[in-house]
Amino acid sequence: MENKRIDVILNEVRDGTLSIDKAKALLSSFEDIGFAKLDHQRQKRTGFPEVVYGEGKTANQIISIVLSLMKSTNRVLATRVDDQKGYQVKEAIPEMEYNSEARTLFWKQPDETLCIYEGYIAVVCAGTSDLPVAEEAAVTAEAFGASVKRIYDVGVAGIHRLFYYLDDIENATVTIVVAGMEGALPSVVGGLISNPIVAVPTSVGYGANFQGLSALLTMLNSCASGISVMNIDNGFGAGYYAMLIHKNHRINF
Amino acid sequence: MENKRIDVILNEVRDGTLSIDKAKALLSSFEDIGFAKLDHQRQKRTGFPEVVYGEGKTANQIISIVLSLMKSTNRVLATRVDDQKGYQVKEAIPEMEYNSEARTLFWKQPDETLCIYEGYIAVVCAGTSDLPVAEEAAVTAEAFGASVKRIYDVGVAGIHRLFYYLDDIENATVTIVVAGMEGALPSVVGGLISNPIVAVPTSVGYGANFQGLSALLTMLNSCASGISVMNIDNGFGAGYYAMLIHKNHRINF
Amino acid sequence: MENKRIDVILNEVRDGTLSIDKAKALLSSFEDIGFAKLDHQRQKRTGFPEVVYGEGKTANQIISIVLSLMKSTNRVLATRVDDQKGYQVKEAIPEMEYNSEARTLFWKQPDETLCIYEGYIAVVCAGTSDLPVAEEAAVTAEAFGASVKRIYDVGVAGIHRLFYYLDDIENATVTIVVAGMEGALPSVVGGLISNPIVAVPTSVGYGANFQGLSALLTMLNSCASGISVMNIDNGFGAGYYAMLIHKNHRINF
Amino acid sequence: MENKRIDVILNEVRDGTLSIDKAKALLSSFEDIGFAKLDHQRQKRTGFPEVVYGEGKTANQIISIVLSLMKSTNRVLATRVDDQKGYQVKEAIPEMEYNSEARTLFWKQPDETLCIYEGYIAVVCAGTSDLPVAEEAAVTAEAFGASVKRIYDVGVAGIHRLFYYLDDIENATVTIVVAGMEGALPSVVGGLISNPIVAVPTSVGYGANFQGLSALLTMLNSCASGISVMNIDNGFGAGYYAMLIHKNHRINF
Amino acid sequence: MENKRIDVILNEVRDGTLSIDKAKALLSSFEDIGFAKLDHQRQKRTGFPEVVYGEGKTANQIISIVLSLMKSTNRVLATRVDDQKGYQVKEAIPEMEYNSEARTLFWKQPDETLCIYEGYIAVVCAGTSDLPVAEEAAVTAEAFGASVKRIYDVGVAGIHRLFYYLDDIENATVTIVVAGMEGALPSVVGGLISNPIVAVPTSVGYGANFQGLSALLTMLNSCASGISVMNIDNGFGAGYYAMLIHKNHRINF
Amino acid sequence: MENKRIDVILNEVRDGTLSIDKAKALLSSFEDIGFAKLDHQRQKRTGFPEVVYGEGKTANQIISIVLSLMKSTNRVLATRVDDQKGYQVKEAIPEMEYNSEARTLFWKQPDETLCIYEGYIAVVCAGTSDLPVAEEAAVTAEAFGASVKRIYDVGVAGIHRLFYYLDDIENATVTIVVAGMEGALPSVVGGLISNPIVAVPTSVGYGANFQGLSALLTMLNSCASGISVMNIDNGFGAGYYAMLIHKNHRINF
Amino acid sequence: MENKRIDVILNEVRDGTLSIDKAKALLSSFEDIGFAKLDHQRQKRTGFPEVVYGEGKTANQIISIVLSLMKSTNRVLATRVDDQKGYQVKEAIPEMEYNSEARTLFWKQPDETLCIYEGYIAVVCAGTSDLPVAEEAAVTAEAFGASVKRIYDVGVAGIHRLFYYLDDIENATVTIVVAGMEGALPSVVGGLISNPIVAVPTSVGYGANFQGLSALLTMLNSCASGISVMNIDNGFGAGYYAMLIHKNHRINF
Amino acid sequence: MENKRIDVILNEVRDGTLSIDKAKALLSSFEDIGFAKLDHQRQKRTGFPEVVYGEGKTANQIISIVLSLMKSTNRVLATRVDDQKGYQVKEAIPEMEYNSEARTLFWKQPDETLCIYEGYIAVVCAGTSDLPVAEEAAVTAEAFGASVKRIYDVGVAGIHRLFYYLDDIENATVTIVVAGMEGALPSVVGGLISNPIVAVPTSVGYGANFQGLSALLTMLNSCASGISVMNIDNGFGAGYYAMLIHKNHRINF
Repeated sequence: MENKRIDVILNEVRDGTLSIDKAKALLSSFEDIGFAKLDHQRQKRTGFPEVVYGEGKTANQIISIVLSLMKSTNRVLATRVDDQKGYQVKEAIPEMEYNSEARTLFWKQPDETLCIYEGYIAVVCAGTSDLPVAEEAAVTAEAFGASVKRIYDVGVAGIHRLFYYLDDIENATVTIVVAGMEGALPSVVGGLISNPIVAVPTSVGYGANFQGLSALLTMLNSCASGISVMNIDNGFGAGYYAMLIHKNHRINF
Repeated sequence: MENKRIDVILNEVRDGTLSIDKAKALLSSFEDIGFAKLDHQRQKRTGFPEVVYGEGKTANQIISIVLSLMKSTNRVLATRVDDQKGYQVKEAIPEMEYNSEARTLFWKQPDETLCIYEGYIAVVCAGTSDLPVAEEAAVTAEAFGASVKRIYDVGVAGIHRLFYYLDDIENATVTIVVAGMEGALPSVVGGLISNPIVAVPTSVGYGANFQGLSALLTMLNSCASGISVMNIDNGFGAGYYAMLIHKNHRINF
Repeated sequence: MENKRIDVILNEVRDGTLSIDKAKALLSSFEDIGFAKLDHQRQKRTGFPEVVYGEGKTANQIISIVLSLMKSTNRVLATRVDDQKGYQVKEAIPEMEYNSEARTLFWKQPDETLCIYEGYIAVVCAGTSDLPVAEEAAVTAEAFGASVKRIYDVGVAGIHRLFYYLDDIENATVTIVVAGMEGALPSVVGGLISNPIVAVPTSVGYGANFQGLSALLTMLNSCASGISVMNIDNGFGAGYYAMLIHKNHRINF
Repeated sequence: MENKRIDVILNEVRDGTLSIDKAKALLSSFEDIGFAKLDHQRQKRTGFPEVVYGEGKTANQIISIVLSLMKSTNRVLATRVDDQKGYQVKEAIPEMEYNSEARTLFWKQPDETLCIYEGYIAVVCAGTSDLPVAEEAAVTAEAFGASVKRIYDVGVAGIHRLFYYLDDIENATVTIVVAGMEGALPSVVGGLISNPIVAVPTSVGYGANFQGLSALLTMLNSCASGISVMNIDNGFGAGYYAMLIHKNHRINF
Repeated sequence: MENKRIDVILNEVRDGTLSIDKAKALLSSFEDIGFAKLDHQRQKRTGFPEVVYGEGKTANQIISIVLSLMKSTNRVLATRVDDQKGYQVKEAIPEMEYNSEARTLFWKQPDETLCIYEGYIAVVCAGTSDLPVAEEAAVTAEAFGASVKRIYDVGVAGIHRLFYYLDDIENATVTIVVAGMEGALPSVVGGLISNPIVAVPTSVGYGANFQGLSALLTMLNSCASGISVMNIDNGFGAGYYAMLIHKNHRINF
Repeated sequence: MENKRIDVILNEVRDGTLSIDKAKALLSSFEDIGFAKLDHQRQKRTGFPEVVYGEGKTANQIISIVLSLMKSTNRVLATRVDDQKGYQVKEAIPEMEYNSEARTLFWKQPDETLCIYEGYIAVVCAGTSDLPVAEEAAVTAEAFGASVKRIYDVGVAGIHRLFYYLDDIENATVTIVVAGMEGALPSVVGGLISNPIVAVPTSVGYGANFQGLSALLTMLNSCASGISVMNIDNGFGAGYYAMLIHKNHRINF
Repeated sequence: MENKRIDVILNEVRDGTLSIDKAKALLSSFEDIGFAKLDHQRQKRTGFPEVVYGEGKTANQIISIVLSLMKSTNRVLATRVDDQKGYQVKEAIPEMEYNSEARTLFWKQPDETLCIYEGYIAVVCAGTSDLPVAEEAAVTAEAFGASVKRIYDVGVAGIHRLFYYLDDIENATVTIVVAGMEGALPSVVGGLISNPIVAVPTSVGYGANFQGLSALLTMLNSCASGISVMNIDNGFGAGYYAMLIHKNHRINF
Repeated sequence: MENKRIDVILNEVRDGTLSIDKAKALLSSFEDIGFAKLDHQRQKRTGFPEVVYGEGKTANQIISIVLSLMKSTNRVLATRVDDQKGYQVKEAIPEMEYNSEARTLFWKQPDETLCIYEGYIAVVCAGTSDLPVAEEAAVTAEAFGASVKRIYDVGVAGIHRLFYYLDDIENATVTIVVAGMEGALPSVVGGLISNPIVAVPTSVGYGANFQGLSALLTMLNSCASGISVMNIDNGFGAGYYAMLIHKNHRINF
């Protein structure tokens, strides 16, 4: 509870300019303040969109949620929206962009600047099968106002491709590295650059991969420092987390 | 390969001021440059100490490594140093600080400013048994030049203690959350603040805890966004990763 | 074997009023008594319905079992009945209520009082995807005669919603907490209230969730006391177990 | 925040009988009230002791915590105290009882009635190796004021022993069943009685037992209803949970 | 190599009554004799049928294999044959019996006595969902010439049903116990009888059952002696193994 | 309840030759008869010794249990007795045999015939490290009155050694196969012989052996029929189970 | 960087026969040489085909990739191509061979000699269900220019079949052994031959096989030396690895 | 059975130059020939030493085995011999070399040439903690007559060190790569070279490393071809397997 405002209320009560009932109501409204202030802060971070998790929702449910959010916010992102639902939503709300690879829908106010931060986030991925997760991460970061550099298909089996892009990776404020199978790519990148890495294991692979467990354990046990790990296939989480680091680079218009 | 320097070399070869053998040697030394430049950059980040991993090293080995590093660098940190070895090193190098809880040794040049960044990193931990990991994270961050606020013993079993410190957590640039047993604390903190969280599961617990697996899975599956995960008991990794985020807040003296 | 009745039989044998063959038959019928008495007691607990497990049964099988039970008992509950089967049964037995969320069918004698206990059971769940399990628990408890307060979508990612309902939870005789993903909610609730909690992990989640293993381990390792755990997705078990605690609050009409 | 008390404070402020500073202090102290009231309630439940978790604490630490608690409370329980520490504490505080099997220390005010509830809790265990966990559960329940009936060594390998005690089990308000190896006992008991069972897997066994995993899975998958499960070896948790059910049977002196 | 027959051959060579080429052929045919004799013995055990594993075979493949076997053997059993394939085979070979529960096809020579052993094998199963595995075991044993007593739906949740059939189980030469979920039934039966038990875990269950792992671990860790374990769902293996024990009870016609 | 004895009691009651109180006592003693008869049968199987599980018992405890058993039975076997305890017991009871490899103690009445069955049990083991488990199985079978043929160190890495002993294995009534590491031996033996095999995985191995899990899974998944599996390292269980099969071969003196 | 060529360049610069700009370009092109030389070497190994991984690619994608490769290389192999896609590709490119068992497509220049190595690789498999993996390995080795001897259906359950082919296996330069279920075959072969074995576990099996985990662990723990292990179902990897060993036997035309 | 020799024997029998008894003996001795010939071949591969597995053997046992082997063979290798045992053996047999890092003992005839193959095997390891396993592999290969190039401490966290040695690795006939923690090194090396790699995971690491499981899964799932995998910590196996590939490069003296 903020002491200053209590001061004011109490003074007004003493002075008789505030009725006891109104004072009670005001003070009671403080109760939730520890939590509520958080949500207010969230809205104050312009550019951070509202996010709709599409899995398990029908196209119609997504449409009505999105339409409602479009009235009160500048950016709306929906994730885990498969093709069929994606195109249904797109038909209903043509101004939304559907990214079929990332399985995302995105909308922003026409006069909203897309990129509002300096620098960029690098999104690196090992193989073409890891693309959906990498794209989910990239699109999420873009929807939150970041510029993104995509560096795809640079897995350790052909490590020279990675070195070709090393400067681009080193110069990013933060790098998201997405890899399935043995998931060794974050370790290699982590040994080469000095900015933070957000590692995302994917469930791509077969046999002893055990739906991504192999890549997950690899990343957690990385001998390189400067790597933190997301849940398997959690592209959105990686994009969001990278933004929390990147947001210090806000452009002042 | 840096084009400018190749220019210079080639011109000197053409002009006869540089022998072909010397030119060959110089050009060959560029071979590793893609990698070497990294290490030079590392040294340029003043305040980032050299780190010695003490596990499996004898006290004498640590002493000689540390003494050697003290000649060429401003800060030296050694981790995973148990009491017995810690006090042996301390006896040999009295200017080192031994932190028995964190199992770390630290030394800096007397004229080196300890804290060189604005703001602070919050280190939050659930129970007293998680202290060694939390302290390792905290001491690491401090050794790298950060100010740290410790907020300990605020596990979800007595969640009001956590709320008492909520402002301190929200105002940190980044928060390390350390928890064993069920590892629920990062999820709760993640639902309350909007800065990035580095979650560290510990192996504290028994039975179906399976040496930290329970806490690890909890953190990876967190329903709150803004949480990335370290390996079980990896306090150093968390401190280091937090610094990679925090280092944007460098104080300009 | 009850001594009194043996007494009577033996006396009658001695007195010749009972033939040895009849005595033998009577005594033999005691053999199973240790077990049989249990079932009699079950029937004596008025309000506890007969339960039909619908999984793997056809609609017709469920219909014939339910019709048979309706003749001899006051309440019939069927669980794990999917929509298609549910509506088939409903068509055949219109007086049954089908709850499509909980996948349950319920019927009671028209003159049977629904709620026969004082107080209520709280059913708390973390996310909307956990609803089917939570509803199965809630409907089960109601079918057994309890009043239920549903407190849904109060996961730890937005913990202020939980606090809003804290009094309702504290005042319940017993609280069922249903959560998937990281399953941290029971730990948080357990740190706030002092009545028993029945925790149910759900298989909701992805990646390192491993079909509910993550939430299950979280709940088993909870640092809060006062929490016991059910199998993954076992809403019925939770509702039934809560009733075993709640049944002390029987209303005496 | 309780409206009544805010009323009083505000009225006193208006009337000038309470200074604004004092009012501020009072209102601020309400901040934590959502949580604090819980702890007050805890203390109001006479008979519920303060509990000290002995693992990882030295004998001296336990002694000083216990001595401090003895001043402000009527009952003190310490768990996971091994023989060596137990006898050290006992020497320092002779009025404490040390139970070497359960690894617990207990003390109550001399004039405090030990058992303050009607009926009893049954503690059933499968084999003699499960005794420490069973005893921890039993001693915990007793420390909290319950009467306990111990029914030990009645594992399914000699199921007739179990039947001998069936009435004792059926008549308990709640039954704690402790079993290692295959952990089948709770299922068998659960098929025979109609009161709630708290099942505790132990880590007793070898080979494919995997430190209690086998018994844990058995209990979670029990085909008998009315069973909830604790973490492996968590005797204290079982005793505490049983008390939460049993506490409705408070004796009114 | 059997010395006697070598003797004969060598003598015939010496005596010139056997050409060297023929002798070579004969001796060469001994090469496999260590293995071949086994197959001859197999055929000598009248009543042991040829077995066809139907999984992954088409109906036509099964038909042609069976027709071929019917020419050279007295009994043919095919397992893991689903309904569709089963009825196709039945149409082509009407004298085969298809058991849709057990997913087996069986044929014997019309003049072959079905049961050729004294006594019987008991097949006990816990729940109705375990029936397919139990039936596979039972039909297998019958196809091999045993008499089988089926004792179904006697799981530990209603243990009095088991006791009703205890004599039948005790009098069997060997008992197959099939159970899913927690798989406790073999332990209970094992504590009651003194003949060997073949335990078969099934994949019936959900949640922490992990496709039969729970039941498998339970059976391996059984505290009762006299239990051996088959792979999950391996009804055929249990029937076959039971026969290896039962075959000592051959009737001499 | 045995009808004949009830008959007699009832007749005596009717005839007045038995008092009602005594009749009651007699009939009450029948209560446990379903279970008790089992134990009587156990004693009637002469040659089956009482077994003491030594793990977790002190030498003195073992001594007093054994001395007590020696008064009422003909054979006493103690398992899991390490060297130190074994020699202590031997000193106290010199007539016991201590087998340091098998970690067993055995005693029989001097006039008791050791082997009371025809034929023999084969105990086959893969490597010398598997010897303790193999010996525990062998000594157990011998203690129960069987003749045992030991065929050791015939692992699949040198499969010709196995073939050397194939006749010995084929001629056994039942074969116990003990193997660690990959545990392939039972599969190989199972493909060669036609009598039942009791497979025992051992925890011998390292790395991905996971304390015997590898061998356990191998044996459960064996493509050869006629193999049943014991818990890891359970030599006693294997010896006991083999005896249940072998006991049909009782010699009639 | 190759010193010789630097020499030449530098000399030409000094001599003025090479402009500094051209020299710079040449030297810069060396940057990637550490990696690039590898790919050149790959192409120089005539007979090693380009490989297309068909999983997740459409028939049209495969067609266009293959057509493009056919212009620049002598051999093209595509793996993991199911029947439907395989026949579509075959229709478009009739000169490709589709192997439906192996799920591979292969093409070579008409004038390219198929087999370019002396000796042969043996591909051994345990059961008919393991055929697809074995064929993938065999076809891969053939596509790379090896001669292959297929020895199928020689699992340990009928080990005499294996011995029949022992000479063929011993004489191979390298042997690929494919097995599912318990995966014991490589151990047995490894105990009999002295050339290297490449073991491939398959996911064939059920129950405690856990999708190939059982066979994988068996092979990793093999007590026979001379066995290395591939991922579950990785036939291509085995064929490729065998070729790396076999390629020393190149025929010089 | 070799037809030629049978021919000869039979002819001699017919001719009377060979007695039937002797012929029988000769033919019987063929029985084991399938196996025996293998061992003869083994001995014919000069340079392949006899190997003693030291784990679980006493120093005295090792001494007597080694002394016995020294009489009949040219090279003796003992593995898994810890320091204490190693020095005891060394004292008894001073001509043996003890390698304390590799935990091996080695002896060869003084006139035996150490290296008998052309080219070399590369042994690469990631970190200093992996040294014992790498050394075991290297010493094994040397004991078998290979030349070995050790390239240690080139883990992916500092990948430029690896590139420094790339030519050495590429030029080896076969490369053993040893790595703990996340085990990514074989994937990186596999992407750079074209000769076969034998990957050995080590148990070095902590937390989610699970005693080497993490590195093992990484290696099995490697996206680079040309990698086969050994059991965790199996340095000997890797050295032996590499020799099976390397042995084609025998020097002809």
